[in-house]
Formats: sequence, structure tokens, C-alpha cells
Amino acid sequence: MLAITRPGGQSCVVQLLLISSSNVHGYGFLQHPEPQIRRFLSRKRRVAFCPFAAHDHDAYIAKVRERFAQMGFEIIPIEDLDRAEAIFVGGGNTFRLLKKLYERNLLDVIRQRVRAGTPYIGSSAGTVITCPTIRTTNDMPIVEAQSLNSLGLIAFQLNCHFLDPDPNSTHKGETREQRLLEFHEENTTPVVGLREGTMLWVENDSHRLLGEKPARIFRQGKEPIEVGPGKWLDEYLR
Amino acid sequence: MLAITRPGGQSCVVQLLLISSSNVHGYGFLQHPEPQIRRFLSRKRRVAFCPFAAHDHDAYIAKVRERFAQMGFEIIPIEDLDRAEAIFVGGGNTFRLLKKLYERNLLDVIRQRVRAGTPYIGSSAGTVITCPTIRTTNDMPIVEAQSLNSLGLIAFQLNCHFLDPDPNSTHKGETREQRLLEFHEENTTPVVGLREGTMLWVENDSHRLLGEKPARIFRQGKEPIEVGPGKWLDEYLR
Repeated sequence: MLAITRPGGQSCVVQLLLISSSNVHGYGFLQHPEPQIRRFLSRKRRVAFCPFAAHDHDAYIAKVRERFAQMGFEIIPIEDLDRAEAIFVGGGNTFRLLKKLYERNLLDVIRQRVRAGTPYIGSSAGTVITCPTIRTTNDMPIVEAQSLNSLGLIAFQLNCHFLDPDPNSTHKGETREQRLLEFHEENTTPVVGLREGTMLWVENDSHRLLGEKPARIFRQGKEPIEVGPGKWLDEYLR
Repeated sequence: MLAITRPGGQSCVVQLLLISSSNVHGYGFLQHPEPQIRRFLSRKRRVAFCPFAAHDHDAYIAKVRERFAQMGFEIIPIEDLDRAEAIFVGGGNTFRLLKKLYERNLLDVIRQRVRAGTPYIGSSAGTVITCPTIRTTNDMPIVEAQSLNSLGLIAFQLNCHFLDPDPNSTHKGETREQRLLEFHEENTTPVVGLREGTMLWVENDSHRLLGEKPARIFRQGKEPIEVGPGKWLDEYLR
């Protein structure tokens, strides 16, 4: 990992912990990534939480506050970003999240804070918005955001809750893989399919897969490949 | 069914055959709705086909031309709409379809033709665009249309390929029902979940369910209900 040294001599690292999903079969809410969250936040304590992907912000804040308190962290409102040592953007509906971020002019603010070194944790929708666009979301477009362009903190796309086809299914709707191949009929950006129970640990241009399962990487005109946990994905994302 | 009589005395009926999906387990391409397509088109022969939901238009046109020829109908390009006796808009990606229709200024033209009495057949994406918006599509937003607003030929939303939850699934991504409940956190319009193998036969404000399975109707603040094949849905959609 290379820390960027700014003109003033201050070292600056974009640090992202991008979790596929807060809920995983057999685990409680945000239970499976707890070791990684603790390690990622290190000595930072005050985390600004963004609940906009959910409909009921207060209920979501209470749930996340309780869970983070169990891990020893303090949740503060996203409006108090100036006081925050880290940011957590939670899951829900990605279109709703992005629309609210545009309406409150928060995209630029968050992007600047993260580029200046504030660690960012995303889960599901909060992970997808770190991509250049939300064009690889699974969510229903229940509201209309002013654009599908998002934070662009990473240079490729993620598909959270990535799901392998069910060989016994008689359903004729598209499989996830078919949808991502459709994405590459219209776009050239690589896509990482992040299965539930996995996450990416990002430091500047270094991207490491953590968790229990491999990721599936889709690149235009190439066969998808599987890359196992613990591996760096960088060579496949150029 | 009430035919609207226009000032000139000409009777005018909006006629839509809205198929959930062209492919159904155990059937060939557009095989299951063949009896309804024949009855719906009656003596009309020349059908303008819109392939924009697919990436490869030529391949899609060839496939649909062959299938419609088997049923005794002639497929002509959507650009020749003036000569058409009916319209068929096929399935694929709903965002891609809507984007192309906006780019080619075809939404108003199609809407006017259908409101003037030209029968319209839709399948999957081609069905969803007859709703006020495409906010209940299952598709991935692989491209960005200028708006999610669509034809508005019906006053409610449809969810095609409607899928019941799999009781054995360990996947934590939202079920279809959860996504439609999320839609109603943000919108008041009723939604009809059309399972594969079913379709709506629309004449003006009359909506009849045809096919092999019930539809599931979602209304804001109410429990979803099931309505069986052969039934009119109108009382639930007001």
C-alpha cells in the first residue's frame, strides 16, 4: 500500500471497508465483519452514520448506534461530519440513498473527506455508492435520483449480495450473472461480484478481498473469474 | 368494456395485451400466450416490433419475425409505425428500452397511436413501460434514461416475472415482495405482481388477468392480496 504524500508533507490514504451485506445467514446484524471493522477503525472512535438508504432514519440510527456501541464506537449524525473520525453508510435502497445524498449536497463533502483520509465503511447500498455509478445495484428504482453517478472512490463497479444461479430454478427472469453480462453490453468498467459474507479492504489503489467466499470478477469480453479470500484483486481491475 | 366514442363518432378503445414474460418454464418462446395473442390481434396482420430492450436488434427482430410468422403475422420495423395495425414491444432491459425510446422521441408517438386504438402487445420490459413509470422493474440500471417516466397507458404499476420467496433460501438480499413494499414507502400507486405465465388483457379501464396463476396485488398500507386467473382486477386498482 502506498500512502500519497501531499504537498504539505501530510500523508493521505483513501481507506474503505466495503462490506457486501450487513446480514449474512447464520450471523447477527454486522456480526460477521466485526473483526475487520475493529481493525479498520483502529483508534478512531467517533463514526458519522448515514441512514438515508432506509425509510425510517431514526429506527436505523438507533439500531446502528446500539451495534456500534457494542464494539466500542460512538455513532454521531452524518450532519456532524466535521466532528467525525470515520464514516459509515448503511444498506437499504441504493436509489433512495443516492437521491438523498444529491438533495443534501453530501456527495462532494463525503468524497472530499474520504480523499483527505477519513476512513469510510460501506455496507450494501453504502458500498455500491463508492463506485463510479450505481449501475450495478440490484435494487428497484423506487425513486428517481438526479443521476446514477455516485462517489467514484473506486474505479470499478461492485455488485453486492452477489448470487450464484440456482440450478433447480424454473424461473426465467435474468440471473445475476446475466444482468452483469448485460451491463457489459453497455459499459466497459470491470465489476466485482461480492458474495454475502465478503468485503473489500481498500487502501488507495490496493483492493484486498476478505471474508468467507471468493469474489467473481466480470470484465467486458472475458470469461468471469473467481478470486479467493485474502487475495488482492488489483491485477484484474486495470 | 366501454368503447369511448370520439366527437367524430369513431369508437376508440385502448387495447393492451401485457405479458409477464416471453419465456416460461416448459414452453417455447412466446408459446404460452399464443392463443391470447391470436385472439387479441384478431384480423390485424401487420405488427410493428420494437427490439430496443435487447443489445442486438437484428437478431431479436429475426427471432420475433420467425415466431410471429408461425402465427400468421407480419413483423415490420418500429420505424414503419404508420403502416402498422398493431405494436409489439419485446422484453430485455427496461432501462435500455426506455432510454432508446426517449432518444428516438418514440414515447409520444406510441402513446398517441395506442390511444387512437392501435392494439399494443408488451412482454416483460415492453409491459413495464406501459405503466406511469418503470419504478417497479427488476432490471439492473445498466444505462441512464433521461427519466423513469414511461408511457402511462395504465394508471398502476406492474412487476413482471413476479417471484414468490424461496422458503429454503439463505440469501439475505431483498425478496421481490420486500422490494415492492419498499416501493410503497415512497409511492402510492398500486402494483400488480404478474407471475411468469400470466398476462393482463386491458380494454380502456378494464383489466382482466389471464394465464395459469394468480396475480399478487400490492397497495400502500394494505396486506397484499391474490386474485385468480380469469378475474377482473379493476376493483383493487382504484
